[in-house]
Amino acid sequence: MAVCVDVLAVVLLLRVAVLGFPARPPPQAESSCGYKSCPATQPSMLNVHLVPHTHDDVGWLKTVDQYYYGDRNDIQHAGVQYILDSVLEQLLADPTRRFIYVETAFFFRWWRQQDSATRKAVTMLVNEGRLEFVNGGWCMSDEATTHYSAVIDQMTLGLRFLNDTFGACGRPRVAWHIDPFGHAREHASMFAQMGYDGFFFGRLDYQDKARRIRDKDMEMVWRASESLTPPTADLFTGVLPNGYNPPAGFCWDQSCNDPPIRDDPNLEDYNVDNVVKRFIEIANDQAKMYRTNHIIMTMGSDFQYENANLWYKNMDKLIRYVNAKQSQGSKVNVLYSTPSCYLQGLHQANLTWSVKMDDFFPYADGPHDFWTGYFTSRPALKRYERLSNSLLQVCNQLEVLGGPNSRKGPYGEGDSDTLQEAMSVAQHHDAVSGTEKQHVANDYAKRLARGWAHCETLVSNALATLSSWEAPREYCLSLNISVCPATENSYKFFLTVYNPLSRMVSWPVRLPVNGSDYMVLQPHGQVLDSQVIPVSKATRKIRGDRGYAVNELVFRVQAPPVGFRTYVVSQMSRQHPPVAPQPGTPLSMENQFIRVTFDPDTGLMNSLTNLETKQKIQLMQNFYWYNASDGNSADSNQPSGAYIFRPNSSTPIIVSQTAKTYTLKNSVVQEVQQEFSPWVSQVVRLYWGSRELELEWTVGPIPVEDSLGKEVITRLDTNINSSGYFYTDSNGREMLERRKDFRPTWDLKQSEPVAGNYYPINSRIYIKDKVNQLTAVTDRSQGASSLQDGSLEIMLHRRLLYDDVRGVGEPLSEPGDDNKGLVVRGRLLLALTPPKDAADIHRPLAEALVLEPLLAFQTGELHPNTILEFSGLQASLPPAVHLLTLSQWDQESVLLRLEHQFQVTESPTNSQPVTVNLKKLFSTLEVVGVSEMNLSANQWKDEMNRFDWKTSGGEQCPPRRLGDTSPWEITLKPMEIQTFLLRVRQR
Amino acid sequence: MAVCVDVLAVVLLLRVAVLGFPARPPPQAESSCGYKSCPATQPSMLNVHLVPHTHDDVGWLKTVDQYYYGDRNDIQHAGVQYILDSVLEQLLADPTRRFIYVETAFFFRWWRQQDSATRKAVTMLVNEGRLEFVNGGWCMSDEATTHYSAVIDQMTLGLRFLNDTFGACGRPRVAWHIDPFGHAREHASMFAQMGYDGFFFGRLDYQDKARRIRDKDMEMVWRASESLTPPTADLFTGVLPNGYNPPAGFCWDQSCNDPPIRDDPNLEDYNVDNVVKRFIEIANDQAKMYRTNHIIMTMGSDFQYENANLWYKNMDKLIRYVNAKQSQGSKVNVLYSTPSCYLQGLHQANLTWSVKMDDFFPYADGPHDFWTGYFTSRPALKRYERLSNSLLQVCNQLEVLGGPNSRKGPYGEGDSDTLQEAMSVAQHHDAVSGTEKQHVANDYAKRLARGWAHCETLVSNALATLSSWEAPREYCLSLNISVCPATENSYKFFLTVYNPLSRMVSWPVRLPVNGSDYMVLQPHGQVLDSQVIPVSKATRKIRGDRGYAVNELVFRVQAPPVGFRTYVVSQMSRQHPPVAPQPGTPLSMENQFIRVTFDPDTGLMNSLTNLETKQKIQLMQNFYWYNASDGNSADSNQPSGAYIFRPNSSTPIIVSQTAKTYTLKNSVVQEVQQEFSPWVSQVVRLYWGSRELELEWTVGPIPVEDSLGKEVITRLDTNINSSGYFYTDSNGREMLERRKDFRPTWDLKQSEPVAGNYYPINSRIYIKDKVNQLTAVTDRSQGASSLQDGSLEIMLHRRLLYDDVRGVGEPLSEPGDDNKGLVVRGRLLLALTPPKDAADIHRPLAEALVLEPLLAFQTGELHPNTILEFSGLQASLPPAVHLLTLSQWDQESVLLRLEHQFQVTESPTNSQPVTVNLKKLFSTLEVVGVSEMNLSANQWKDEMNRFDWKTSGGEQCPPRRLGDTSPWEITLKPMEIQTFLLRVRQR
Repeated sequence: MAVCVDVLAVVLLLRVAVLGFPARPPPQAESSCGYKSCPATQPSMLNVHLVPHTHDDVGWLKTVDQYYYGDRNDIQHAGVQYILDSVLEQLLADPTRRFIYVETAFFFRWWRQQDSATRKAVTMLVNEGRLEFVNGGWCMSDEATTHYSAVIDQMTLGLRFLNDTFGACGRPRVAWHIDPFGHAREHASMFAQMGYDGFFFGRLDYQDKARRIRDKDMEMVWRASESLTPPTADLFTGVLPNGYNPPAGFCWDQSCNDPPIRDDPNLEDYNVDNVVKRFIEIANDQAKMYRTNHIIMTMGSDFQYENANLWYKNMDKLIRYVNAKQSQGSKVNVLYSTPSCYLQGLHQANLTWSVKMDDFFPYADGPHDFWTGYFTSRPALKRYERLSNSLLQVCNQLEVLGGPNSRKGPYGEGDSDTLQEAMSVAQHHDAVSGTEKQHVANDYAKRLARGWAHCETLVSNALATLSSWEAPREYCLSLNISVCPATENSYKFFLTVYNPLSRMVSWPVRLPVNGSDYMVLQPHGQVLDSQVIPVSKATRKIRGDRGYAVNELVFRVQAPPVGFRTYVVSQMSRQHPPVAPQPGTPLSMENQFIRVTFDPDTGLMNSLTNLETKQKIQLMQNFYWYNASDGNSADSNQPSGAYIFRPNSSTPIIVSQTAKTYTLKNSVVQEVQQEFSPWVSQVVRLYWGSRELELEWTVGPIPVEDSLGKEVITRLDTNINSSGYFYTDSNGREMLERRKDFRPTWDLKQSEPVAGNYYPINSRIYIKDKVNQLTAVTDRSQGASSLQDGSLEIMLHRRLLYDDVRGVGEPLSEPGDDNKGLVVRGRLLLALTPPKDAADIHRPLAEALVLEPLLAFQTGELHPNTILEFSGLQASLPPAVHLLTLSQWDQESVLLRLEHQFQVTESPTNSQPVTVNLKKLFSTLEVVGVSEMNLSANQWKDEMNRFDWKTSGGEQCPPRRLGDTSPWEITLKPMEIQTFLLRVRQR
Repeated sequence: MAVCVDVLAVVLLLRVAVLGFPARPPPQAESSCGYKSCPATQPSMLNVHLVPHTHDDVGWLKTVDQYYYGDRNDIQHAGVQYILDSVLEQLLADPTRRFIYVETAFFFRWWRQQDSATRKAVTMLVNEGRLEFVNGGWCMSDEATTHYSAVIDQMTLGLRFLNDTFGACGRPRVAWHIDPFGHAREHASMFAQMGYDGFFFGRLDYQDKARRIRDKDMEMVWRASESLTPPTADLFTGVLPNGYNPPAGFCWDQSCNDPPIRDDPNLEDYNVDNVVKRFIEIANDQAKMYRTNHIIMTMGSDFQYENANLWYKNMDKLIRYVNAKQSQGSKVNVLYSTPSCYLQGLHQANLTWSVKMDDFFPYADGPHDFWTGYFTSRPALKRYERLSNSLLQVCNQLEVLGGPNSRKGPYGEGDSDTLQEAMSVAQHHDAVSGTEKQHVANDYAKRLARGWAHCETLVSNALATLSSWEAPREYCLSLNISVCPATENSYKFFLTVYNPLSRMVSWPVRLPVNGSDYMVLQPHGQVLDSQVIPVSKATRKIRGDRGYAVNELVFRVQAPPVGFRTYVVSQMSRQHPPVAPQPGTPLSMENQFIRVTFDPDTGLMNSLTNLETKQKIQLMQNFYWYNASDGNSADSNQPSGAYIFRPNSSTPIIVSQTAKTYTLKNSVVQEVQQEFSPWVSQVVRLYWGSRELELEWTVGPIPVEDSLGKEVITRLDTNINSSGYFYTDSNGREMLERRKDFRPTWDLKQSEPVAGNYYPINSRIYIKDKVNQLTAVTDRSQGASSLQDGSLEIMLHRRLLYDDVRGVGEPLSEPGDDNKGLVVRGRLLLALTPPKDAADIHRPLAEALVLEPLLAFQTGELHPNTILEFSGLQASLPPAVHLLTLSQWDQESVLLRLEHQFQVTESPTNSQPVTVNLKKLFSTLEVVGVSEMNLSANQWKDEMNRFDWKTSGGEQCPPRRLGDTSPWEITLKPMEIQTFLLRVRQR
C-alpha cells in the first residue's frame, strides 16, 4: 500500500532543540533491566516462557477503589493492594522469579502507600527486570468504544508515572491487551508510535483463531495505518495461546482448584510424574501452533496473585521437575519469563512474518456469541465520557494559558489531574464499554463529575485571569434537557464561549430561559440574531422538576481559536410570545446548503439534497428495535447482554410506521419534531449556516413490560449503491472498509446475520457509491452496520432482561430516574457529499463534535477592563491540523501534540503535508525550547529504537528525512501526530 | 468432695533417678518465650487481646494431606502449607505480630519440607514468643468419641515433636479445643495432668452459654476428677466469646467478605472512623460478659491465614487507629496477643473463680439442634479406631520387648510410627467422630490399615525374636465375619495369642475353618476344649465371597501378662458333623455365673440372674429405630445428620416384636441367634467361664427405600429402679452421673426429649438402684441414654438422607459393599452385679475389651527350641493397675505409664493405693534409670509449675508427699496415671 518514495515528506527531526531544552537527563543505564535482563534460554530446546501475571480490571464488578482495597469481596474476591504486597514478597524471595504489572491506576495507588524501604525494594526489582511493567497505561483501555484522544492521554498518564518513578527501566516494551473484546487497528498504530516493540492479546474471533492455529499464523506484523509510512505504525502482534489464562490444569492461584504439585513422597497423592508428563504434552502441543522454539504461557488471570506464594511455590516445582527431565533427554526448557523476553526470543528467531492490515472486530467466541452489543451499551455513560474528554482538553489548555493562577486563583484551588485520572479510569475496557455493573457505572460517572468540579474551578480561575473579570462563573451540564439555573433565573447574563479548537468555529447554542424575547450582543456590541422557542414536550418530560424554563433561546456563537468570546444576553422588556411548533409535517426544510424533504403522510424524511453540489438521495429514516434473544433458542442459549448482541430475529420491529410531527421554522433554526411513540422521539433540525443535518434522537425509557429485551436502532435507507460496503472509523481516526458477511483475512462462516455485521463506530460511519457519500457523525461511540445496500443503521440504546454470561452478572437495564428506565438523548449529524469531498466536511465536523465549546455563565456587571475576546493562538492553524494536546507538563514546560487529521488519500486539498511553526504558535506564550517525544511522551523521539521485523507482505520504508528547514517548523504528514515537550514562558 | 488429709498418699517423687538417668538437659532458658514474652498491657484500660489463629482440621471435607497441600480446593479452599508459609512471612515482617499454631500433624508435615534458613527463622519466632504453640497435640481430638488411651498417645506424639524441635519454648501452656462439639471432663483432667495452665473452647450448650453470660461466669476452674486430689485435675477453663471466630464485621481473611480498613483519604470509602467506633463498641459489649479488664478476640477461623497479609495488614491498622483514640480519652487498648498472654492477664487479676464439676455434654446450638448423633456416626470406623488402638499398644509393647530386631528383622522393616500417626490423626474431632465426608473416612481407614501393615511386620519380627521361630506369621482382621485364610486353608496351624494386659486374661476365640473336628493343644501339650459350629447365616451374608469357611472353631485362650502363648490346632482325621443350631428359643441359658431366660413366644430375653449373688432382674431387650427428622417440621428445619440427632418422634419404631431364633449349646458356648429382620440380627451368647453376657448385634444395610432416615438403637428394659439417673464414662475412664432432663449447672429447658438426653459412652453405661446394677460395656464409642426408669438404650447405627447443615455437606449414608449400605457388627457385654461390686467386674471387662489379644497364625513345623510361652513381666500386676503405655522412646529408654484404673470410691478392694516396684516389673528388661514426667511426657514432673487459681467452691489440697520409700517403688492412687521415662537394658 505504502509508496516508499515519499515525495511529500519534509520531516524535521528535532534532535535537540535550539535552546537545548527541555533539559534531557543523560541516557539512563539499562544495564540490568530491559532485554538484557532476560533469562537465558536453550537454543536447541523448546523454551516455555512462563509469564506470571495478574489482570486487574480498573473497575468491573466492583469499583476501582473497591478492587484496590479488596472491599466488597462478596461480589468478587479481589484486592489489588494485597496482590502487589504478595508479589513483592515472592519476587524478593527468589531472584529467578518474574512478574509483570500492567495497570498503573492500581500501581500508583499502591506505591503512594508504601514506605521508602518498600519503594527501594521495588525499584531494585524493576531495575533488575524481575518486576516488569507491560502496557503501563493508567488502564488497559477498551478498543471498541474509546476515542484515540482519551486513549493517548490515559497511556501518557500511566507511562509518565512509571518514567518519573523508575526511569528507563520502568518503560514498558510490550503492549498487552489480553482482555479487550476485539482489537482496533488504531490502537495498534498508537502502540507502535508509543514505541512498543510488540503487542499481545487474548481475544479474537474463534474462526480467525482456528485459521491462525491451522496456518501457524498466531504471530504477525500488524500494519496499522494506511497513511503512515511503514514501519511507523507496524506492530508485531501475537495471539496468546490460552486467552490470558494458564493451560488447563496448571492454575495455582487461590481462586483456582487445580491440584498443587505434591512432591513429598511421605504424603498421599504424590503427583510429580503426572504433572511433568501433562505439562510436556501441553507444551509440545502448543509449540505446534507457533513458529519458533519459544512459546509463552500466561500464568495468571483476573485479580490473581493475591497470594502469590501459591503460584510461585508450584511453578518453582514445575520448573525444577520439568527441567530435571532434560537429563533424560527431554527437550522442554521451562523458565520464568516476561512478554518482552518472549518477544526477544521471537525477534532473535529472525523469521519473516505475515502482515495484518485490517482489524480484529467484531469479536465472537462462538457462532452466536458476537460481542457487538457493548459497542452501544450504556449510551449515556459513553456520551458523558466523550463530553468529559472535551472538558479535559479545555481544562488542560486553560491551565496552560491561564498560568499558575489557574490552579489557585479567585475561585479557589482547581486542577486538571482529577478529571485526567477519572477519564483515564473511564477508558478501561469495562468502563466506557458499558460492561460493568450498574453501581460501578455510577462510580465512573461520579469520578468524572468530581473531575468536572475540579476543572471548573481551574477554568474559572483561568478565565478570570485571561478576562480580568472575577465575577462568579457557572456551568450548565444539562443544557441538553434545557436545565441551567444561571440562564433560567436571569434577566441578563454573560455567556463566555471557549473554543478548544485551533480554528474559529461556530456552534448553535440553546439556553433555557423563561422570557420570550432576548437581545444577544457580541463583544463589540453587534446584535446577534436569536430566537426563542418553547421547550419541547419531549424535553419537559425528561427534565421533570430539575428545571423550569419554558423556552429556549437559540443562537449561533463563535469563538476564536483556543480562546473565548463573551456574549451579553438580556431579556427584552417587551416580550412576544414565542412561536410554538405547529402540528404537521412540512414538505421540506432547507438552508443555504441542504434541503431535506418529508413525506407528510408519514412525517418521515424522504430525501436529502446537497444544494451546493446539487446531489440528491432518497433518504428514509426510522426507529426499530431488535428483540433481544432471551437465550431460549435451538441454536444456542446465548442471550443478549451487556457484551453480546444477539437479536432473536434478523428483522427489527418498527417502533412506528409514522411519526406525529410538529414543525417550527425561524431565522436561526428549522425543526421537525417527530414523535414515534411515548419512548422514541426525534428532532430533525437544520440550523442556518450548517452543512450538516442534525438528528436529535431521544430514546427511553425503553419499555420491557412485555418481557422483551430491546435493542433500539435508527436506520437510514437510501438509494446509494453501496454494494455491501460501508466504512467505520477506528477509535475516531482512520477509516476502515467493512463489507457485509465478509472478513478480509479469513473465510467467514456467518452465523449471526445482524450481530455478526456490527462494528464499533466512535465518530462516524459512511456509505458511498461513485456519486454520493452519506456520512453520519455521532456524538459518542456506538455500534453500527449496513445490512442492505444503501442502508445504514446505528444502535442507540439497549435494555435487556438477561445477563449474557460473560461475568458481569447483571442484565443491562439502566434504571434511570425513579428506576423507570434510562432516557438517552443524542445527535447524529448527516452530511451528503461527493465521496472525494466527504472528508473535508466530516473531519472538521467530527473534530467540532469531539471538542465542544465550553459555555460559562456569569451575571453582574462588567468591569471596564474586562477582556471579552481572547485567542491563545497567533492565528488559526490550517484545516488539516488538529491541536490534539496542549497541557501543562511541569512548571516550565507544556506538552503539545499536533495532528494531521486527514488520511493520505481522502482529500485532494487537505491530505497534504502541512507545516507549522512552533515559534509562531501561541499568542501569549513564548516557546523557548522544544524536544520531540514519542506519542506517549515517555521517550525522546530520537531514542526510539524499536525492533525491526521482516514481513512477507507490503513494504517497509525507512522514514525519509529530507533535511531540516527551521528547527521551529514542523511538518505533519497525513494522519501523523507529533508530540513535543515545549519550554514556554508567558510573553 | 476431696478430703485434704489424704492419709493414703505415699507419693514418691523421683527427682533424679538412682542412676541419674535419663540424662536431663539443663533447664532451658525461657528468657524470651512463654509468659515473659507477653506484650505489655494497660492496667487502667480494657485490654483487648487479639489472637491471630487458624483452625486446621486434620481431615474433614478433605483428607489431611489434601488439606496440607491445598488439593481439592473445589471441595473447600484450604491449604495448610500455604498458611504456614504465609504466617511465617508476616511474623517476620513485624515483631509485634503474634500467631498461634495448634495442630502438630500439619506443622510436622510442613517443618519436614523446610530448609535450614526457614527452620532457623521459625525457631527464632518460637523463642521470642511470636509464634506460640497451643494445645500442640497431633490433632485437636474429639472429646465425645475418643478413648483416653489414644488421646494421651496423640498428645504425646505432637508435644514430643514440639519439644524435640523447639525445647521448652515449644511447650504449649494452653489447651485449646475451640471446635469440638462438647467437652469431656476427662479431657480437662488429662490437660491438667499434662501441665496446661488453662483451657479455652468455643462450643457449649446455648442455654449454658446464655446463663454464663448473664452471670459473668464464662471463665471458671474445672475440677475434672472426683478421685484425684485438687488441684491435680483442676483446669482453668474459659469460654471464648465468639466460638473461635472474630467479632462480626472484623474478619479479614481471604475467605471473608468484611470490608477492609480503608485509610487512604484519596480513595473512595474511607472508613477508619466507622471501624474504630464499631470495634470499641464491640469490645465494651464483650467486656460486660467477662470479669477482668482483659478480653480475648479470636482473629481467625477454619483454615484461615492462607494469605496472612490480609489479616495482619488490617489488624495493624485496627490497632493503630483504635489505640490512637487513647489520646482522646479512649480506655480501650488493643494488642496482638496469644491465649497464654491472655491467660496471664486473667491470672494476674487474682480473682476467685467458680468451680465446674460436671462436663459439657451434650452440646446443642439451638432448641432442636443437639449434637448427639455423632456419638454413634460411622460405627464401623469407631470400632476400627478402637481395634487399632489395641494393635498399637501391642505393637508398642513388642517393639520394646523384641528389641531392635523388631523394626528390622526377618520379616523386613516394620514400625509403630505409621500406626501411631494414623491413630493420632484418627483422634481428630472430624475423624473418629464420624463427621467427615465419606472419602475422608475412607482415607482415615486407609491410613490405619497402612499402620497395621507396618505394625504387623514389627510384631512378626518381635515375636520371631521372642519365640526363636521365624515361620511366616499371618494376621486375620476379619474374624468377626469368619474370614481368615490362614485357618480356612490349613489342616494344622499355630495360633499365637499376645496379651497386652498386665494380668493373665482369658478370651474366647472363634476361627473360621472348613473341618468339623479339631484338636487344640496348649504349649505344654494339654488338650483344650474346643467346639465347631456352623458359620451363621447372618455372617455368611455379610462375608459374601471374602471367605469360604463353613464352620467356626470356638475355644477359650489365655496368655500371660504382656506376653504370648502359642496353641497348636490340628484337624482331626475323624470328622463329626458340627451340631447345627436348632430352631426355637430355649427357656434359658446359664453357665457358672449367669442365667438368662427367654420368652419362647417372642424369642426375646426376659430376665438376667447373677448366680453368684443370686440377684435377678427382668430384662427385655429389643431393637428399634428413630425416624430421623428430614427437617420438615413446624418447630425447626433441622434434620438429623452426621452431627445432629433429631428424631421426628420420641417414640422409636420397633424393628420386630419377635425374633426368629436358633439355639446352640455346647461345652464352650451357648447361643441364641435372633433374627429380627433382614437387616437386624443378634446372638445372645454365653461362654463357659464368663461373668458377662455377650450380645453380638448385626445391623444393616439399613433400608432407606421408604425415604426414611433411621437411627437404630437397642434398648434394654429392666425393673431396676433407676429414678432418672444413669451413668456414663468420660473417655473410657471416670464415670459421670447423668439425669434425665437435667443439667447440674443450669435450669435445663428440655426441647428434645430424646436427643437432649443422649450422652457419649466410650466404654460403658450403667443404671442401678440400691440392689442391682446393670452395666453394659461396649466395644466402641456410642451414644446412649436412659429415657425411662430401668431402661438403657444405645444407638448402634445410623443411616440418613439429609445433610444436617453443619458443614459436612453429605447425608450420613455409608455405602458399604456394593453401595447397598454398610452392615455393622458389634458387641455389648452385660454384667449384673450389686452396685458396690460393679467396678470390680466392669473395670477389668472394659480393659480387656479395649486391649484385645493379638492373634497370629503360622503353619509349618516348630523348631525344637521354639518358645511357645512368654511374659514380659516378672509377675502380673495388681488388678487395680493398668499398663497404659509401654513404648520405645529412643534407643535406650522406654516410656511407661501405669494407671490406677479404679475410682476413689467404686470398689472396696480395688479403690486403694497400690504400689509397684519398677525394678521388678519386667522379666527381660533391666530398669537402670527412671524419671517421672507429666502425663504427656513433655516435661519433667518436678518442673511442672502450673498457675494456681483461687476457687469459690470445693477445696484444693497441696499434694502431700509422705516421704520416699524405695526410689523404685511407686504408689498409684485411684485414677492416677504416672508417666515414666525408663532407661532399660535387655537382661
